[in-house]
Amino acid sequence: MTATYNATSEVLAAIDRSQDEARHKLFDFLSIPSVSAQPEHAEDCAAAARWLAHEFASVGFTTELRQTPGHPIVIGHYAGPEGADAAALPHFLFYGHYDVQPADPLELWDSPPFEPQMKPGPHGPRVVARGAVDDKGQVASFLWACRAWHKTTGSLPIRITLLLEGEEEVGSANLEAFIAANKSLLKADVALISDTGMWDRTTPALTTRLRGLVYTQIDLVGPDKDLHSGMYGGAALNPINALTRILGALHDDKGRVQIPGFYQGVDDLPPALAKQWGGLGFDEGAMLSSIGLTAASGETGRTALERMWSRPTADLNGIWGGYTGVGAKTVIASHAHAKLSFRLVGRQDPAAIMAGLKQFLDARTPPGAQITVQDFGGNPAVEVSTDGPFIAAAEEALTDEYGKAPVLMGCGGSIPVVGTLKTQLGLDTILMGFGLDDDQVHSPNEKFEWSCYLGGARSHARLLAKLAELG
Amino acid sequence: MTATYNATSEVLAAIDRSQDEARHKLFDFLSIPSVSAQPEHAEDCAAAARWLAHEFASVGFTTELRQTPGHPIVIGHYAGPEGADAAALPHFLFYGHYDVQPADPLELWDSPPFEPQMKPGPHGPRVVARGAVDDKGQVASFLWACRAWHKTTGSLPIRITLLLEGEEEVGSANLEAFIAANKSLLKADVALISDTGMWDRTTPALTTRLRGLVYTQIDLVGPDKDLHSGMYGGAALNPINALTRILGALHDDKGRVQIPGFYQGVDDLPPALAKQWGGLGFDEGAMLSSIGLTAASGETGRTALERMWSRPTADLNGIWGGYTGVGAKTVIASHAHAKLSFRLVGRQDPAAIMAGLKQFLDARTPPGAQITVQDFGGNPAVEVSTDGPFIAAAEEALTDEYGKAPVLMGCGGSIPVVGTLKTQLGLDTILMGFGLDDDQVHSPNEKFEWSCYLGGARSHARLLAKLAELG
Repeated sequence: MTATYNATSEVLAAIDRSQDEARHKLFDFLSIPSVSAQPEHAEDCAAAARWLAHEFASVGFTTELRQTPGHPIVIGHYAGPEGADAAALPHFLFYGHYDVQPADPLELWDSPPFEPQMKPGPHGPRVVARGAVDDKGQVASFLWACRAWHKTTGSLPIRITLLLEGEEEVGSANLEAFIAANKSLLKADVALISDTGMWDRTTPALTTRLRGLVYTQIDLVGPDKDLHSGMYGGAALNPINALTRILGALHDDKGRVQIPGFYQGVDDLPPALAKQWGGLGFDEGAMLSSIGLTAASGETGRTALERMWSRPTADLNGIWGGYTGVGAKTVIASHAHAKLSFRLVGRQDPAAIMAGLKQFLDARTPPGAQITVQDFGGNPAVEVSTDGPFIAAAEEALTDEYGKAPVLMGCGGSIPVVGTLKTQLGLDTILMGFGLDDDQVHSPNEKFEWSCYLGGARSHARLLAKLAELG
Repeated sequence: MTATYNATSEVLAAIDRSQDEARHKLFDFLSIPSVSAQPEHAEDCAAAARWLAHEFASVGFTTELRQTPGHPIVIGHYAGPEGADAAALPHFLFYGHYDVQPADPLELWDSPPFEPQMKPGPHGPRVVARGAVDDKGQVASFLWACRAWHKTTGSLPIRITLLLEGEEEVGSANLEAFIAANKSLLKADVALISDTGMWDRTTPALTTRLRGLVYTQIDLVGPDKDLHSGMYGGAALNPINALTRILGALHDDKGRVQIPGFYQGVDDLPPALAKQWGGLGFDEGAMLSSIGLTAASGETGRTALERMWSRPTADLNGIWGGYTGVGAKTVIASHAHAKLSFRLVGRQDPAAIMAGLKQFLDARTPPGAQITVQDFGGNPAVEVSTDGPFIAAAEEALTDEYGKAPVLMGCGGSIPVVGTLKTQLGLDTILMGFGLDDDQVHSPNEKFEWSCYLGGARSHARLLAKLAELG
């Protein structure tokens, strides 16, 4: 015990002393425009994968790039310190992704998205770049912890498998098949993912529930060409009129989604959890203020945390059709389109949501209109058990680092791999992340607080020791 | 009488013999990309104006270009044949426009929009180019008639004033002020506009009612930045959700516009007119077929001609917001926009429509959303009297040319200058046009049938003689 504790102190000191190096490493990683959604960046995605493989190899992992029909997957293995009884050591699988969201709209960035910068902030400096927090900065915080362990002790205290993919932002189309075909390669006791957030800047968190996702595109075609709205207005189906009428019916005036069967598998929050969440002191006004809103929205009769963590949603992510330039054009457009996605909770089933959506659209398609629905894939919601030695180790590590116990919180977003790791590999996942709500994830000027990068590395370093103690 | 009749025969023969020249002239005019909506074509607009001034000058008009804050207005005067008692001659004002709609989407054109081509069609050749029928081909048909009169007799038989503008497609912002400031320049007995259509390929028409227009853009802003739809979905106002909900409420399920006060000033069709229109044999199925539709739409309980000629509309001309690229992006967009325009009938008042629209939007703006409405201008509906010697002259000219009386029809579109000519100059307008429904006005592959160009020139030539007979 004592040796591990001392090692932890030294490792933490090594982290504190190596901040310059850690900045350089992160900036290098962030400079690679590994945008998975854009084919012109396929080479950059491969470069980001190679960067990770190289960096982890330099701290003792054996690494390899495994090709997929899409972007490569980085596999790494660390079998434990030399001379240790490997089989007795705990073994965790670290999952992360090296791909990032597209940066558009470019004109809203204050600095180029792939030229990372350190900028002053109200609570200290932050790194600004696409991917700073989602997910490169967080993967880099884990790497930093490994680097410090390796430099200080010459080894890492437990067994680790790395699973780092490059398609998370585009639905991880190739991941499940890879995992299913490589189960022996990915054996472990528990998984660890650093892609969620803290409760606030000084309060750590473990995320225990994630929403699922179904993502679609709706295409509506009417006339076979654009029409003059004077000549034909009133007698020709107007696809934009039709589409807005249909989409406008998605919610009732209490904010409930009107898709047939939508709420099947959605349970009311257990009273104990409702009480717990109520006690967290979430400040909805401050959250709204931080995004420039003055009023709440969403399902009536539900608290803000329910609406973000335990209630399902239907959100239009994009819409387009007709004339969108400057001034006036009196046209009836031939076609109109929308991107529509849903966040799932509980036992909601992606296939049932798609079926319900098609039923909803069919019932409202006006005569003469053709509607097609493109299914970009989906995954159900996930709940992580709060019992067990692994999550207890994470709670201890975070309590030691931050001086307070982590909040056990939900997350409105989706990390589909968590479900896959459970179903394919039987693994529970520790969701220990260091992002903040104002990091502008998926938005221009994405950032990662330096204090979060540093705290994340220190927390990961502590966690490695805590997990080793379980052996 | 006899001399005029013989002149008409010779003039018509001259038209028939000069088709090659007429094609060259039209192609030259169509080759100038006089797109008024696009500032990069401002020089082309001026060039088109100069082309017209030159052409009309060559058949005896005195012409000048009058500058405006926008594109120039071409003014021309023909004071009657030499030696004639000018004051005794009828005097008409010919209005036309030399500007054209933007050509986009370019990829849907089979040939370049500003490289006019003669192409074979099911009923003979047609000219294909942006502006072929709206309005250059029709203005050119009048010019052709003047050219033939001038070549045959050395003169035109009556007094003519030309008013040719370059901003009709963008709302004629400078026209009313110009007319109001130049009334003495624009004195006449009646106006003539060739910018409407025939009943069908072999049946001429005079248009006796035009709808009005109000054109707006609606801008809705919610959060002050794009948001991650997982993190914030369910708790942050989604501008695209909000906008579609509002626009989806524009019509009830009978197709009636829900804007307060919208139907004030809208009268039921007089029974006599309803009977007349009913007797026209309009084939709604064929019309729908021609635009790739299989079912009717619009206000229930109204015939197709009512819906296109005598009922008001609300049409979304464009909509955009959020992610519109390939694949999935899980974003809640900061803002969403739509172009919304209305066709007016009867005594509907553009200002009242705007006020009603704002009331409609205010009542439905969700908390936290900011909605602004941009007013791109409007004009009321117009009805032209079917009594009087001038319209009788036009009826005779068309009956002589086509062997059947012209249909007195409505038009779904708007020609705001008709109202301005009445209010500012006291002029009624003869709306004698030669377009066809399948000309693809405002669409890719706009065309003008050669038979319509020729028939239009011959009809204009006959009309000049008929009007002269009134003197």
